[in-house]
Amino acid sequence: MKFKPTLIGALLLSVTSLQAQTDDGIIRLSEFAYPVKRENLNIPAVNGYQVLKCDFHMHTVFTDGHVWPNVRVQEAWREGLDAISYTEHMEYNPHSADVKVDHNRSHDLAVELAKENNIVLIKGTEVTRQTPPGHFNALFIEDANVLVSDNDSKMDQEAIDKAYAQKAFIFWNHPGWKATAIPGSYEWIDFVEKMYQEKKLHGIEVVNGLGFHKKALDWALDRNLTIIGNTDIHNLIAHDYNIGQQGVHRTMTLLMAKDRSAAGIREALEAGRTVAWSSHYLFGKEENVRNLVNASISVSPSYYEKSNPKTKVTTKYYEIKNNSDLYFELQLKSGNGTKKIILYPESTQILTAESGQFQLTYEIVSTYIRSDKHLQFDINLK
Amino acid sequence: MKFKPTLIGALLLSVTSLQAQTDDGIIRLSEFAYPVKRENLNIPAVNGYQVLKCDFHMHTVFTDGHVWPNVRVQEAWREGLDAISYTEHMEYNPHSADVKVDHNRSHDLAVELAKENNIVLIKGTEVTRQTPPGHFNALFIEDANVLVSDNDSKMDQEAIDKAYAQKAFIFWNHPGWKATAIPGSYEWIDFVEKMYQEKKLHGIEVVNGLGFHKKALDWALDRNLTIIGNTDIHNLIAHDYNIGQQGVHRTMTLLMAKDRSAAGIREALEAGRTVAWSSHYLFGKEENVRNLVNASISVSPSYYEKSNPKTKVTTKYYEIKNNSDLYFELQLKSGNGTKKIILYPESTQILTAESGQFQLTYEIVSTYIRSDKHLQFDINLK
Amino acid sequence: MKFKPTLIGALLLSVTSLQAQTDDGIIRLSEFAYPVKRENLNIPAVNGYQVLKCDFHMHTVFTDGHVWPNVRVQEAWREGLDAISYTEHMEYNPHSADVKVDHNRSHDLAVELAKENNIVLIKGTEVTRQTPPGHFNALFIEDANVLVSDNDSKMDQEAIDKAYAQKAFIFWNHPGWKATAIPGSYEWIDFVEKMYQEKKLHGIEVVNGLGFHKKALDWALDRNLTIIGNTDIHNLIAHDYNIGQQGVHRTMTLLMAKDRSAAGIREALEAGRTVAWSSHYLFGKEENVRNLVNASISVSPSYYEKSNPKTKVTTKYYEIKNNSDLYFELQLKSGNGTKKIILYPESTQILTAESGQFQLTYEIVSTYIRSDKHLQFDINLK
Amino acid sequence: MKFKPTLIGALLLSVTSLQAQTDDGIIRLSEFAYPVKRENLNIPAVNGYQVLKCDFHMHTVFTDGHVWPNVRVQEAWREGLDAISYTEHMEYNPHSADVKVDHNRSHDLAVELAKENNIVLIKGTEVTRQTPPGHFNALFIEDANVLVSDNDSKMDQEAIDKAYAQKAFIFWNHPGWKATAIPGSYEWIDFVEKMYQEKKLHGIEVVNGLGFHKKALDWALDRNLTIIGNTDIHNLIAHDYNIGQQGVHRTMTLLMAKDRSAAGIREALEAGRTVAWSSHYLFGKEENVRNLVNASISVSPSYYEKSNPKTKVTTKYYEIKNNSDLYFELQLKSGNGTKKIILYPESTQILTAESGQFQLTYEIVSTYIRSDKHLQFDINLK
Repeated sequence: MKFKPTLIGALLLSVTSLQAQTDDGIIRLSEFAYPVKRENLNIPAVNGYQVLKCDFHMHTVFTDGHVWPNVRVQEAWREGLDAISYTEHMEYNPHSADVKVDHNRSHDLAVELAKENNIVLIKGTEVTRQTPPGHFNALFIEDANVLVSDNDSKMDQEAIDKAYAQKAFIFWNHPGWKATAIPGSYEWIDFVEKMYQEKKLHGIEVVNGLGFHKKALDWALDRNLTIIGNTDIHNLIAHDYNIGQQGVHRTMTLLMAKDRSAAGIREALEAGRTVAWSSHYLFGKEENVRNLVNASISVSPSYYEKSNPKTKVTTKYYEIKNNSDLYFELQLKSGNGTKKIILYPESTQILTAESGQFQLTYEIVSTYIRSDKHLQFDINLK
Repeated sequence: MKFKPTLIGALLLSVTSLQAQTDDGIIRLSEFAYPVKRENLNIPAVNGYQVLKCDFHMHTVFTDGHVWPNVRVQEAWREGLDAISYTEHMEYNPHSADVKVDHNRSHDLAVELAKENNIVLIKGTEVTRQTPPGHFNALFIEDANVLVSDNDSKMDQEAIDKAYAQKAFIFWNHPGWKATAIPGSYEWIDFVEKMYQEKKLHGIEVVNGLGFHKKALDWALDRNLTIIGNTDIHNLIAHDYNIGQQGVHRTMTLLMAKDRSAAGIREALEAGRTVAWSSHYLFGKEENVRNLVNASISVSPSYYEKSNPKTKVTTKYYEIKNNSDLYFELQLKSGNGTKKIILYPESTQILTAESGQFQLTYEIVSTYIRSDKHLQFDINLK
Repeated sequence: MKFKPTLIGALLLSVTSLQAQTDDGIIRLSEFAYPVKRENLNIPAVNGYQVLKCDFHMHTVFTDGHVWPNVRVQEAWREGLDAISYTEHMEYNPHSADVKVDHNRSHDLAVELAKENNIVLIKGTEVTRQTPPGHFNALFIEDANVLVSDNDSKMDQEAIDKAYAQKAFIFWNHPGWKATAIPGSYEWIDFVEKMYQEKKLHGIEVVNGLGFHKKALDWALDRNLTIIGNTDIHNLIAHDYNIGQQGVHRTMTLLMAKDRSAAGIREALEAGRTVAWSSHYLFGKEENVRNLVNASISVSPSYYEKSNPKTKVTTKYYEIKNNSDLYFELQLKSGNGTKKIILYPESTQILTAESGQFQLTYEIVSTYIRSDKHLQFDINLK
Repeated sequence: MKFKPTLIGALLLSVTSLQAQTDDGIIRLSEFAYPVKRENLNIPAVNGYQVLKCDFHMHTVFTDGHVWPNVRVQEAWREGLDAISYTEHMEYNPHSADVKVDHNRSHDLAVELAKENNIVLIKGTEVTRQTPPGHFNALFIEDANVLVSDNDSKMDQEAIDKAYAQKAFIFWNHPGWKATAIPGSYEWIDFVEKMYQEKKLHGIEVVNGLGFHKKALDWALDRNLTIIGNTDIHNLIAHDYNIGQQGVHRTMTLLMAKDRSAAGIREALEAGRTVAWSSHYLFGKEENVRNLVNASISVSPSYYEKSNPKTKVTTKYYEIKNNSDLYFELQLKSGNGTKKIILYPESTQILTAESGQFQLTYEIVSTYIRSDKHLQFDINLK
């Protein structure tokens, strides 16, 4: 049997009231079902752009993932995502004894459900080649099956070229993922340089799951490639992330887009208006991270001040508020004020500063605008 | 990429310490990964039997479920189950355009993983016929494929007979599940009576997911059939249950077994030593429910007493302790004592009683020993 | 020793990193400290008014409460409140053997801390008389001590008159709280009628803690008195409410105010722009509840539609979004659409409706605009 | 008003069922009240000793704490503690303008409530002197008031001597707590040496709140003094610890006692059978920590093995189970097996080892048996 899914989680019934519910001889013991809901993942608009939450890298049973395609839509809906992309491996099909190989199939099976759930579906694939160079994701393709090559020796190049011919947005996945297994594989090799020169490489997956690829971030920054963060989920999101606990979300790419559509997503990707978000951390170009921070954090005018009679120092009080579901950790760099501030999602802290100052400068140590650099954040005191 | 699953959830890293971790240029942002663990689902032994936690009804992508078979083992391991059974539909194969039909396949694919995870795997199938009679699960079969019949008009009977020939343990699933859609379908029909007479029906699934089938409970009690509770999960357990929140568990059959093995499970099923557990509720034969309650709840000797100078009444104090992960709700029926007691999992309450009494009688309203009857629970005061 | 409170909860340290942290020979094992933060309790502005969260009824050790006054500010700060009022009993001082009686003292001790935490402190007291009439709270008083009367027989009247002379805003607390103990005590008695006639009664506490006083709601509505909800907390908020779990908040009065100040609060109280919030429920004048709902819930234009080839029915899809931290439960009254909708805090559901309709009408069963009436909520479909 | 506290948290009522509940015109909106319960803090018996959970250091409004004495019993009951001790400062009384100074009073006010809640109350006090030496707790005293000295220059010595005369068990609190403020104050000074020589010093508080005092641990080990861990709570436990989240508990002393009584506690303290528990960490004498670990962790016989056809290596599978509410983190030191194991409270992990080995040696890095040394834990494989 398969019950029609309903919102039974919300019906809190007492034992007593149970008795009254039955007219078909079946009692629904619903009080501990899961609260089925789409979370509003709140991030304020950034300079007129809405912030879309996207995951452009995931797998299903059609290659080496563990779920039917519908689950990925279900997960995206629950966790407040706007857009996802199925990116099945092109050359790796471990389920082929049981599941017919068709590189478009997981996408096609999810189209209707994605529409019903208002999730933007971007057709994609993962070009899975020898490492190095490793894997590339191609988004906005038309047909994944035609990218497969028969010619082993040339297949890396051919797959990229065919994806490019389909006007794909192409990014390099998790550079260095076999860094320890294959020495020398975490380098900017000729193959990639050639792609870059020919404008066939548009972005780099700087965060994959919970792994932050440091060199990859710097490569993207130095070449003005778009910075991407994805789950590359094979298993269940609910088993790999502690979803719903203490503001934990899956890894994603935050996209500052003109509108919530495939076209809006493409435009933002090409313009590089992205920040990768994983665990507590944000990764991106300084300007993008700064814009996101400015949209999320606000500091009130001073609401109180008091003097210490001994030291003659006057302390002023401010509220520093995180208006988003993001997390920020600030450490003071200059000025006399609160040394360390944790801004949990949707919460506020008290900031104090010595009177007479006009600015405090913090480093937001939960951001990376280069592999060795956090965002500097100036607070103007009023 | 697919990271090798590791216990990274436990590594709590600060931003500062992050810097020191890298030797391969990749930082694991692990502090918010899910704590991967097998929960000890504590239920004390009952009269020398260990209490096994079993789910004998579930689906995968091989029929109409949403997950690859490995996920069911993963879920069972996390949630503390001892035994599971894949019970794919025999005549309903909505994924057949993509997934090759083989009724044994989900079981076979999980065998190795189940061994590695120490989960007992019972080979099963779901005989999915017209309603009524509806569906039956056959456990301990050898080959699900041979149960399929070509003869449409006789297939109900043939499938049951073939399962019986394989020495299956057979139970009727969720009787009445189409009670409103098909009037008259929630009855003890001739087909079932014949099975029962011929000893081909051994149990009834009284709880399916979060649905408690009232008439089914009484049928099982009146005919001494084994009482079963299963999830019949198609989706993810993590999406259909609020796992990990406030003592919520998936629906299951608690089995009082001589040992933790397929043979031990069969013996307990045949002996009818089962209680179905769903949400906060327990369902079973009075004796089984009582034994489980007695093993779980203990009451201390009185540790304090005091007199009310006005009323001259002396009140005695006791601790009532729930030593299990079950949940109990008690309402006083006779005696002068605490009127209502909630025993949350692994917790204790204070019980008070007027001095001079030897017994308080409660009804455990979170148990059903008949569709209209709760267990009566006597507390002897010391 | 008393550690200076710091935000150590946010520093997630691994065992390994611990070693590096010490320079004073003391290691802070901080990873499991509580995340100290002020929650942003999000409720959108209502027609240009900001929604202030207030609790005008609470006790400390200075009468029969269990905490020093500072704890009430701490609680208010954490839980996102804007304003509180200490309302110690005037005639009930069970701690007087240990604590010097001074009815202004808890307020006075908290003034500085409230300023530092940006909490608006309204000076108040609880006039604790025989029941009936029972208790009244007087807010915006200047001096609680002078309200105490020596004349036993007249003290009810005198205390009210003196509070009125101090220009207090006076409301009747929890009418009927001894309804079962003192028959006839849950009535609109002459004493209260006289207060009402003389304009000395301005509001009624319709919700006290988790108790909803039904008749009191109707009295307030019929006489245009301000509707109030308070915790009347004596114990710890953290012990009496499941704070932080599943959107649980303490009971409070939501006030639609021109600004966040004592004056703004007084104006809103006098204008009656309040809604009481307790558990999942809202209580108030229809107009106020409706305004709050309209500010909190939004419905998108249809984003998808599909036809059922069998039934020829076309279904349109909408998103219904809860932009607040409130909780709503909707039941369909007219139109063909989703029958039941749970809007958890900050979350979204899918709403479906048969094509061709322009409106669905729901009852928001988690609101009370009279003791026997929920708010009707019309959704115009686009 | 003050509702009589009841177990209303457990009554889960739907909106619909609410209507039926009223007979007094007041509806209890109870579904989100806190689940009031005493947690079973499970730690298995250790070599026939029961493990008592104790906190011997806490404050109330009677000195510089923030709560009335009853709250400390309430907290202890909820959090599964067996014994507590009020240890008000003797010379520091910041509330004296409002609260009458009486060093025995908080204890005396809690006696009855502690009896009702079955909490063992040990009479204590905190001798609060200049730092160094700083503070000492004296337990099992008869009268705290007589310890106060008028003679300023000798008061350190006199207070200790008077406590000793009352047969107190005396321990040094948080040595080094002003280590940075008062250079040289984190030393084993003459005053302490003299106490030690005269047998007037019996233990050291090695963990205070979330602070682990490294040198203090080594001092206790070298001199065979009893190792203690306390909260030294002034504020609310619920505000300073993330109680109920992910197995978080308050800091405490685990005591291996012959029975659950004041005498049993004293005997175990004097025998030094204690382990301090704070956050995820255990601190104690090697023998005590080892006994606790052995009682908590069990390893199953191998339940499965498999060979890798390529490497010819056979891997054996074991279950490693944490039978307690403690937390353990293991790192492999020798042998070929699982490198890192996190044992969350009441959970199990899979341990694998190369066939042919008889032993794996781990370090339990979440234990400290010296400031720079973890417990070594040998697993014998079967």
